[in-house]
Amino acid sequence: MSRTAIRGGLVITATEETEADVLVEDGTIAAIATPALAQEWNADTVLDATGLYVIPGGVDAHTHMEMPFGGTFAADTFETGTRAAAWGGTTTIIDFAIQPVGRSLREGVEAWHAKADDQCAIDYAFHGILSDVGDGVLKEMDALVGEGITSFKMFMAYPGVFYSDDGQVLRAMQQAGDNGALIMMHAENGIAIDVLVRQALDAGLTGPENHGRVRHPLLEAEATHRAIQLSKVAGSPLYVVHVSATEAVAEITRARSDGFNVFGETCPQYLFLTVDELAGPGFEGAKYVCSTPLRPAEHQASLWRALRTDDLSVVSTDHCPFCFTGQKELGRDDFSKIPNGIPGVENRLDLLHDAVVAGRISRRRWVEMASTTPARMFGLHPRKGTLAPGADADVVLYDPAAEQVLSAETHHMNVDYNAYEGRRITGRVRTVLSRGEVVVHDGDYRGRPGRGRFLRREPCGYLS
Amino acid sequence: MSRTAIRGGLVITATEETEADVLVEDGTIAAIATPALAQEWNADTVLDATGLYVIPGGVDAHTHMEMPFGGTFAADTFETGTRAAAWGGTTTIIDFAIQPVGRSLREGVEAWHAKADDQCAIDYAFHGILSDVGDGVLKEMDALVGEGITSFKMFMAYPGVFYSDDGQVLRAMQQAGDNGALIMMHAENGIAIDVLVRQALDAGLTGPENHGRVRHPLLEAEATHRAIQLSKVAGSPLYVVHVSATEAVAEITRARSDGFNVFGETCPQYLFLTVDELAGPGFEGAKYVCSTPLRPAEHQASLWRALRTDDLSVVSTDHCPFCFTGQKELGRDDFSKIPNGIPGVENRLDLLHDAVVAGRISRRRWVEMASTTPARMFGLHPRKGTLAPGADADVVLYDPAAEQVLSAETHHMNVDYNAYEGRRITGRVRTVLSRGEVVVHDGDYRGRPGRGRFLRREPCGYLS
Amino acid sequence: MSRTAIRGGLVITATEETEADVLVEDGTIAAIATPALAQEWNADTVLDATGLYVIPGGVDAHTHMEMPFGGTFAADTFETGTRAAAWGGTTTIIDFAIQPVGRSLREGVEAWHAKADDQCAIDYAFHGILSDVGDGVLKEMDALVGEGITSFKMFMAYPGVFYSDDGQVLRAMQQAGDNGALIMMHAENGIAIDVLVRQALDAGLTGPENHGRVRHPLLEAEATHRAIQLSKVAGSPLYVVHVSATEAVAEITRARSDGFNVFGETCPQYLFLTVDELAGPGFEGAKYVCSTPLRPAEHQASLWRALRTDDLSVVSTDHCPFCFTGQKELGRDDFSKIPNGIPGVENRLDLLHDAVVAGRISRRRWVEMASTTPARMFGLHPRKGTLAPGADADVVLYDPAAEQVLSAETHHMNVDYNAYEGRRITGRVRTVLSRGEVVVHDGDYRGRPGRGRFLRREPCGYLS
Amino acid sequence: MSRTAIRGGLVITATEETEADVLVEDGTIAAIATPALAQEWNADTVLDATGLYVIPGGVDAHTHMEMPFGGTFAADTFETGTRAAAWGGTTTIIDFAIQPVGRSLREGVEAWHAKADDQCAIDYAFHGILSDVGDGVLKEMDALVGEGITSFKMFMAYPGVFYSDDGQVLRAMQQAGDNGALIMMHAENGIAIDVLVRQALDAGLTGPENHGRVRHPLLEAEATHRAIQLSKVAGSPLYVVHVSATEAVAEITRARSDGFNVFGETCPQYLFLTVDELAGPGFEGAKYVCSTPLRPAEHQASLWRALRTDDLSVVSTDHCPFCFTGQKELGRDDFSKIPNGIPGVENRLDLLHDAVVAGRISRRRWVEMASTTPARMFGLHPRKGTLAPGADADVVLYDPAAEQVLSAETHHMNVDYNAYEGRRITGRVRTVLSRGEVVVHDGDYRGRPGRGRFLRREPCGYLS
Repeated sequence: MSRTAIRGGLVITATEETEADVLVEDGTIAAIATPALAQEWNADTVLDATGLYVIPGGVDAHTHMEMPFGGTFAADTFETGTRAAAWGGTTTIIDFAIQPVGRSLREGVEAWHAKADDQCAIDYAFHGILSDVGDGVLKEMDALVGEGITSFKMFMAYPGVFYSDDGQVLRAMQQAGDNGALIMMHAENGIAIDVLVRQALDAGLTGPENHGRVRHPLLEAEATHRAIQLSKVAGSPLYVVHVSATEAVAEITRARSDGFNVFGETCPQYLFLTVDELAGPGFEGAKYVCSTPLRPAEHQASLWRALRTDDLSVVSTDHCPFCFTGQKELGRDDFSKIPNGIPGVENRLDLLHDAVVAGRISRRRWVEMASTTPARMFGLHPRKGTLAPGADADVVLYDPAAEQVLSAETHHMNVDYNAYEGRRITGRVRTVLSRGEVVVHDGDYRGRPGRGRFLRREPCGYLS
Repeated sequence: MSRTAIRGGLVITATEETEADVLVEDGTIAAIATPALAQEWNADTVLDATGLYVIPGGVDAHTHMEMPFGGTFAADTFETGTRAAAWGGTTTIIDFAIQPVGRSLREGVEAWHAKADDQCAIDYAFHGILSDVGDGVLKEMDALVGEGITSFKMFMAYPGVFYSDDGQVLRAMQQAGDNGALIMMHAENGIAIDVLVRQALDAGLTGPENHGRVRHPLLEAEATHRAIQLSKVAGSPLYVVHVSATEAVAEITRARSDGFNVFGETCPQYLFLTVDELAGPGFEGAKYVCSTPLRPAEHQASLWRALRTDDLSVVSTDHCPFCFTGQKELGRDDFSKIPNGIPGVENRLDLLHDAVVAGRISRRRWVEMASTTPARMFGLHPRKGTLAPGADADVVLYDPAAEQVLSAETHHMNVDYNAYEGRRITGRVRTVLSRGEVVVHDGDYRGRPGRGRFLRREPCGYLS
Repeated sequence: MSRTAIRGGLVITATEETEADVLVEDGTIAAIATPALAQEWNADTVLDATGLYVIPGGVDAHTHMEMPFGGTFAADTFETGTRAAAWGGTTTIIDFAIQPVGRSLREGVEAWHAKADDQCAIDYAFHGILSDVGDGVLKEMDALVGEGITSFKMFMAYPGVFYSDDGQVLRAMQQAGDNGALIMMHAENGIAIDVLVRQALDAGLTGPENHGRVRHPLLEAEATHRAIQLSKVAGSPLYVVHVSATEAVAEITRARSDGFNVFGETCPQYLFLTVDELAGPGFEGAKYVCSTPLRPAEHQASLWRALRTDDLSVVSTDHCPFCFTGQKELGRDDFSKIPNGIPGVENRLDLLHDAVVAGRISRRRWVEMASTTPARMFGLHPRKGTLAPGADADVVLYDPAAEQVLSAETHHMNVDYNAYEGRRITGRVRTVLSRGEVVVHDGDYRGRPGRGRFLRREPCGYLS
Repeated sequence: MSRTAIRGGLVITATEETEADVLVEDGTIAAIATPALAQEWNADTVLDATGLYVIPGGVDAHTHMEMPFGGTFAADTFETGTRAAAWGGTTTIIDFAIQPVGRSLREGVEAWHAKADDQCAIDYAFHGILSDVGDGVLKEMDALVGEGITSFKMFMAYPGVFYSDDGQVLRAMQQAGDNGALIMMHAENGIAIDVLVRQALDAGLTGPENHGRVRHPLLEAEATHRAIQLSKVAGSPLYVVHVSATEAVAEITRARSDGFNVFGETCPQYLFLTVDELAGPGFEGAKYVCSTPLRPAEHQASLWRALRTDDLSVVSTDHCPFCFTGQKELGRDDFSKIPNGIPGVENRLDLLHDAVVAGRISRRRWVEMASTTPARMFGLHPRKGTLAPGADADVVLYDPAAEQVLSAETHHMNVDYNAYEGRRITGRVRTVLSRGEVVVHDGDYRGRPGRGRFLRREPCGYLS
């Protein structure tokens, strides 16, 4: 029996800010108490949190480690990616196990287990990606829900790759309505976008800046609306990933005001970067190619407002790193061949804390959208996402006053650029505990591959 | 130093449900811990919460003890009313100190202190009611904010009594925008309603059923919209009290979706009763005369939906009891003379728990809208409204399986009828602690007048 | 040179009601004058319109004569169908020339000319139906616009038959944005509907009443919204055919309020019949199978309201008659095999006049939505759709006081049932002129096949 | 019997554009015919309209001749103002007869008759202004409706002058709901505005630019919404005058989409001028002080869009001229004392034609919103507002190619400035007929005071 006491900090959860001490016993939070009462504790280890925030570790519900895309693979393995996550204060990731087209969903899940098992620095879970919905896959969904994979992503974009048609979407939603799973949707009208891509290329418009032009905001809004209507017909909840356009937010807001279980996620890149990045010098814009795309600056205000009103509930990273050299370059002559994705699993908590400092969100809301809500949304709460007796002791000691500059030179992600290169941030992770074990402390990495465990998830915690 | 341990219960807060034990020391929550860890505690008193919910005591942000209305007074004194509140699991009330027309606001506050001090069974605070806004009153608001009265109610209804015109509303909102106070609004177009009242009476329509007819839902919606627009012009937040009409909810929803700090409250009477009660036999309908009025049944669905979407954030009682005999009867020949108000301070938690049992809301949401949100809304959090180290030990042990029947024969409110007479409820308060002291236990009242303290409040906790 | 004077009637156009006489010369309206002035006219023929309305002949912008569907053909030929139209006061139809899948659009147009030429009792024009959009078809659109076919219908329903995917829709809209054509849309999500059809059949639900169940209102609304968004991306106008659901109307209303060139059409069957017809005794419901389907009664109020607010602009018939015996019966064991369509070309003006009598719409609006707006919408105005000097003398003398009962026994459509069998109507066509020639007079048919001419149309008259 | 033939022009009405000749007999339109047929006409006078538009004379539904305001009078008498109107192609005005506070409505009407009778160059009618609603005034409304005064204006602005409270508004609307009158509303929250005026003056902000600041767009939107809700409660139609703010348009749009009889008017000053004029050099801004105020430029787009969607139906002038010297100067030290109003009765048709040339509206829409709709809205159609047999021969021959520059040096209004000074316009009135008599021709004024007649109006033509 080992005991760690965290003393003197400000404990922040989604609803409370308390000057309290936290006792960790055997990887679990055993008690939260006033400092006076906590004097009674005997502890093997004491972590001094004076002047620090004590928060639940981050839950990044959207990562793509080693994801195959256009003939290459996302550059972070589960080993490197989860280590980078830990450095950034994230103690749980949920990655996507991809059903190979024409094969079973389980095959995809097993492939992802093979990639992740014994590799992860922190705990991890899987969503499934439905590439090819048919009778068999629908049955597999039921089984996987029983095994702790309780959410499944579908794509209205990428015809010929991950694309599902509206009939497949409807069937999967019906199944989810029955088995308690949550359908996650990449909502862009890929069929229409592909027409615009082809027209751009035919017109000789091949540079990365065209990526933003062809993926029209209304085609994100359209697909978002369509997914919502299909979910109403199916009687199932819906979670829309990486929302970036004002018009798409409006569709989610309307559905939520009408009382439907529709949820939205956005990502730091949409909150802090704009479409102008795509027009960077030379081929630099390729670094910022992701889908949905970065948008003109005025969309950011809509996203921040929706985060405040809870019309967007979660901030994940959609971490999907491709190196500029050798990977992004695959699309030098054709923007549609640039691997889609931006690295970010390490930077999420810091970027969002900077928004706290700027007065955009409160500290509690910071914790809520980076940890508590994703944990509850994906069936990991109360084990993850909060600081409460009985919860896993995934704890971050965060220094709100430290300053840092984001850079590829100092980050730990396995990718040759940082999307926020040179950005100055107020706030920095000091110490990270994963199930009670210190994995990062004062710039020192103490974790190891394989200590992270696979998490079997419950159904979405917002449906009861 | 006294210590009480609450063992074996399910601790429910606005965001967590945890099987945990709670340690109370000297009136304050000292620790929350796993039962295993809690074995180490030495406690003078142990409360067995096995099979019970352990929740923060209710916060009723809208009561009117001894309120003068139409020549009579609300029948509950602070003594009887706060005792009834305690019986019902509410450990904090916020009552309204009324500025006498033509006199100072402070005079009203002092009058209310005189009524409440040394009388209350539980802690209490005051809002101010602005009856007569002018330069002096605006200055008084600043001073009162400094003294812990941080919210002020205004009336767009009741011309000639509490009514403020739009210029007075705008000025008070501007002042609140500056001094951090929260304006609470009774939003009904009283000028137009009075025309309809006069027309009804002239047409010989004098019975209580006419009360619901003349107070048109659109006249609630109109005033709600007007208050919202004025608050935007003033740059201040707004809290709309006792929302009852679908159309009024829609106005609040729209403002909230647009990101404005507009909040809405509803009351159990609007959730559980309908306008049909006003047409009861004989003069019985008078028991259900309150303003805003009870609405047709279809409005209830809108209210429940808005509670789920958080477009309505708080459930208070607007407890304002007038006895049927001798008080409600003042309006036998003229419905406009019936004292407005319904008793309810004792029944709120139980009625809402019944909605939990019915599947309308979750347990966490029950706690949130009955305790946490009103506490934070009115600057009492984290002292009130939650269970966390350092918070006041206002704790309710709630038996979710007990059954009871609401009735004037058994209730503790000082009024000769119960608006929910005969209603069967699943759930019942077992034990109530106020700052660590057991005031109700197993049907036994152990409190006393004067143990409740006046609470100086901080500004609204949703504005940071 | 022949001259006909119409004397003594009330001339009603979309904007005027005037007691005036009309002079027709050589098939064209030569003058409209006060009765006093009109005494000066020399006329070969005088038609006495005392007590009658004098209105422009109806323009039915949506008919399907001899249309192939599921292995059979709509039962009215151009000969029988246009004769029935004339009986009902309609002097222009616009039918749909269908591009055969895998063949050219022109081939479809020529096939339709072959069917219609020398057969029609009244003037006629064609829309094209795009079954298979590709580079060639887009070029053909340009040419056909030059030849007076200025509108093209697409289907988001009927996968495998007429269905276009969103990329094809977008491309056709872009082309229309350039060449001035108007895209008409059958807006239902056919891919999703086909899933529901299959599920119903698999569950043994084979009767006609299931037709209404599987074609969900939200799937009409979804497709309507999608078509609107695609039209915004393409920068083209949009005309949505046979709108039947409240939720679809709402999408059109929103787009129109935002200033977009989006137009909606509904049909008498949605205004006067409900989904309950589909559950008629035996297989009778099959008579009412059409798509979009009949809806629950509450949708009618939305449609009437939208006709008043001009959010729906046109009432056409979607006349597509299949006999009950031998044709509708093809779907006895499988509702999805019932030929879709309802006869109505003869009854439109009368049904709508009955709504005038009922106070639902004004007389001017009756003329506007049955004649003027479809004429202008589809580039036939001012030649058709109004009574003005220079316009074709397509004139109806309408008796507003006559009574009739609709019935298959008395109608002139070549189909063995009438969807409004037994319905009593106030109002009846007395006399019909087509280009100055009397084709119907007092229950006597005086027309002949082949006197109707093909009309080359201008672009939509609402886009300037 | 005199006959005038107008030959060779393009006859434009709200729905038609026809190359046709018009025959006028004894002040009335006797016939419209093809030029070929019109060769048969014998006419005393022939007006050559080759190259010209032939349109119905303008109907300006909102003028204030000789209106008292703040101790002075609008500078145009009925003699000078109607002459200027005729010069500008307007052949009917509807002016406002003001009930003196504390006196009868009839007294106001008689005073206005005294001002107007035997003075007017063109036909004229009156709305009533309700300054002081009580039982007597409500009865007077009934009588006046019978005498052809079928619309009544109320003010939610100007407390202490014209202001009606919401109870008075509701009562007048109820009365109008019964007697068929149309309530016109000046929708600004005058009570709140007066607070902001006082605060501005107290802060030493006395210049005209403050007029725009204190009259907040949201206070126009608020009052518009309130008027709409009151009209729904009363069951009466509503016409909102001089709409200028985007947010107010949105309220009208919403009500109209919901099917309510709510109508909106705007004025040229809101379409062509902006709030920037108020900040002109020296005291020049005073020339642009009117209420509702001019708005920032972005509001113009909303107004033009609403004119296209018919959410705004009428363009009137709110002609209310005060000379800069001696009148506007009354407010040199206090912007709230500047007489409110802008001259414009002469310039409306030209300014709007310029918008036709710019492609903002169609020619038909130009005629509709400047003539046909105001005539029908206020019960003058079909006598006024159109060109049809039997209508008054109020006809304008308009040269669409002529160019002119607006200027106080050339205008005929009795005021020392022109709000559009120096603005170049394409289009100019060539000839104006009032009841068949040429009053303006080729820069020559041939009218005379007293030939204009008072028009008894029918109820609003949009309610049937």
